[in-house]
Amino acid sequence: MKAEIIAVGSELLTPDKTDTNSLFMTARLNEAGFEVHRKTVIGDSAEDIAELVLEALSRSALIVISGGLGPTEDDLTRQAVACALRRPLADDAGLLEVIRRRFASRGLVMPKINERQAQVIEGAEALENLRGTAPGMWIEERNTRIALLPGPPGELQAMFLASVVPRLSTLCSGRRMAHRSVHIVGLTESDVDSRVAQIYMSYPGVRTTILASSAQITLNLSQWLMPGETAGELEELTARIAEALGDTVYSTSGETLEEIVGRMLRESGSSLAVAESCTSGTVAMRITRVPGSSDYFLGGVLCYANEVKKSLCAVPACLLEKHGAVSAEVAEALAQGVRRALNSSIGLSITGIAGPGGGSAEKPVGLVYFGLAGAHGCAHERRIIPGDRESIRERASTYALAYLRRFLLAESRRNLTP
Amino acid sequence: MKAEIIAVGSELLTPDKTDTNSLFMTARLNEAGFEVHRKTVIGDSAEDIAELVLEALSRSALIVISGGLGPTEDDLTRQAVACALRRPLADDAGLLEVIRRRFASRGLVMPKINERQAQVIEGAEALENLRGTAPGMWIEERNTRIALLPGPPGELQAMFLASVVPRLSTLCSGRRMAHRSVHIVGLTESDVDSRVAQIYMSYPGVRTTILASSAQITLNLSQWLMPGETAGELEELTARIAEALGDTVYSTSGETLEEIVGRMLRESGSSLAVAESCTSGTVAMRITRVPGSSDYFLGGVLCYANEVKKSLCAVPACLLEKHGAVSAEVAEALAQGVRRALNSSIGLSITGIAGPGGGSAEKPVGLVYFGLAGAHGCAHERRIIPGDRESIRERASTYALAYLRRFLLAESRRNLTP
Repeated sequence: MKAEIIAVGSELLTPDKTDTNSLFMTARLNEAGFEVHRKTVIGDSAEDIAELVLEALSRSALIVISGGLGPTEDDLTRQAVACALRRPLADDAGLLEVIRRRFASRGLVMPKINERQAQVIEGAEALENLRGTAPGMWIEERNTRIALLPGPPGELQAMFLASVVPRLSTLCSGRRMAHRSVHIVGLTESDVDSRVAQIYMSYPGVRTTILASSAQITLNLSQWLMPGETAGELEELTARIAEALGDTVYSTSGETLEEIVGRMLRESGSSLAVAESCTSGTVAMRITRVPGSSDYFLGGVLCYANEVKKSLCAVPACLLEKHGAVSAEVAEALAQGVRRALNSSIGLSITGIAGPGGGSAEKPVGLVYFGLAGAHGCAHERRIIPGDRESIRERASTYALAYLRRFLLAESRRNLTP
Repeated sequence: MKAEIIAVGSELLTPDKTDTNSLFMTARLNEAGFEVHRKTVIGDSAEDIAELVLEALSRSALIVISGGLGPTEDDLTRQAVACALRRPLADDAGLLEVIRRRFASRGLVMPKINERQAQVIEGAEALENLRGTAPGMWIEERNTRIALLPGPPGELQAMFLASVVPRLSTLCSGRRMAHRSVHIVGLTESDVDSRVAQIYMSYPGVRTTILASSAQITLNLSQWLMPGETAGELEELTARIAEALGDTVYSTSGETLEEIVGRMLRESGSSLAVAESCTSGTVAMRITRVPGSSDYFLGGVLCYANEVKKSLCAVPACLLEKHGAVSAEVAEALAQGVRRALNSSIGLSITGIAGPGGGSAEKPVGLVYFGLAGAHGCAHERRIIPGDRESIRERASTYALAYLRRFLLAESRRNLTP
């Protein structure tokens, strides 16, 4: 079953804004058995919208159109679709009352301009908007179904789940897409591909794509399933890939790196403190994205200036002078220092050169040291990270979390050894 | 002049990935006088691509196609466009040599599979790829120009600037789009609109759109200019809007909030330290995004746990007991404490409830206090921020920077007063 998504709005054709509704809808459509074969963004022109809808009718079983249902002169989706289908638009008194009541419930009088939102295309079902004034529409035209949805993401998502998803389930006779993601850190895209290409190519029923972003590689695996069919092939492939890539795989269940590190800290009853220099809060921000992280995260020190490394993390001045702030010695001293200052069981540190200035032949931009201190002593790791300032910082935070994960993994194995 | 952008790639039709190349290209196309009137994402199907190119030929003066120029079986853009134009594809010996040399320069032998990348559509000019192996193409077909560009953003952007932009300038007879952005913090979208709608509606030659994101409102103003015409109307409207909105406007020149705060700190010779509780590094991370921020940013304390508020920021235990960690008193004490601990001229603090847990009737999720301490004493601000955990933290960091900006503005005015 082929679906096509159309986003209406001239603002989506500027350099400042992109359509993101289609990502949310694609996930739900895939689950319901639809494959999205085309996405189009079109401006606020009734003629252009109508032309596109006519084209889409000839090639898609489902057309989802978002945007252009507001009350202003720019909102032309209702008229354009009516025109393409050669059906009249008529006022719906019941719908008008619903909109009027929505305004009244907030103590407002409905502006005259909103009356247009109560117009319905002949033969269409109105879809209730739980979060705004613009009703949606569901239209059947020969073998094609058309859904008109409001553009604001909150309104669209609520309407899609409440009114579109139930209608889809009757269309696809139970065919659906199952999905798994394998998340990897510490290998390049071509490393990953060369290690697993032979494996995934032997599962032609599973579609495998590789996505590289900010020091992490994700393998997205998906398989279409007929009614009653289980995702055996998908599960088997996921397990074989995870085995081939070993410890570099941190998740096959959708958990993020910060969620996994958080779970491991919680399970081992550990507490964490961080000392961040070049990343300046990026690691702490990620760790505390996870609700409940206050159970294991105490806080830390943003030791951007060397003075702060000395005063709050007790890094000896002689270490800074001898080895420089970006060194293995200072990384370990920072990890130990922040561990003591905050009285945590583990201290994690990051010190590096994010650029664009500050690099040298010996210590180039992108050089980052990571330090870890625990009950059994301390350790460090060195990396040279490519990219600009922003991506060096972002990647460094990922490597820091991955290093902490391996440290916690080793600790838990140590505890398992008699 | 109408331009149309086509992104080729089945991965762009999954829930995981979206086309972003079009944003970069739209900005450059607008500057060169083209209006983007349609954007389409299409999968790796030669038939679908060819059909779309045929449609586009009838409605667009320029068609930019990205992706599908790689060496694998999935890369079908060359064949599909050749087919739509009914022109043959032929091997180009010179191009093959360029690709072979590119591999050789990295010590590699060109795989057989890459030979396909040296195929050129009859009558097309090959466009050099400065960052990868896939050459692009420039094709003239009756009144339409077609550009084929590689999908990876780094390769596409370099090729677009080096080979496409110069070709555009000969097409548009100097018509171009001028652009200005007015950045606002501290007002809602409807506040902004009600204060300036009358003003911008009296400039019909300037297109004005409002964009709300994470506590900031941006007014994007753009005006098409004929050759020799200046952007007088645009500049006048920008100035009138800035005047009407007063201090809530922090930039009309494209500077970010963190750049502005950084510039003000540098100009006043001040240094900054931060104490972050609920935002846990978000503010520091933003401040240090700016290259050279080490000139004024010393660092700070991530005081997630109350123990850290006491030990590193010297917040008296009795204040925490009496008023709670999320209070005006503790916000001010944190700002003063971190200022003293780091010996900075200004201390900034954030303490709040980001949720989802931890809220109460008296102190709901979203309640955030901001503290500032300087040579002349300290102050605080209280806000209740809507949204989920992530957006509360992100918005709180914006409000913190905006509060710091107003503080620095007041300081500079104080210094100007005799």
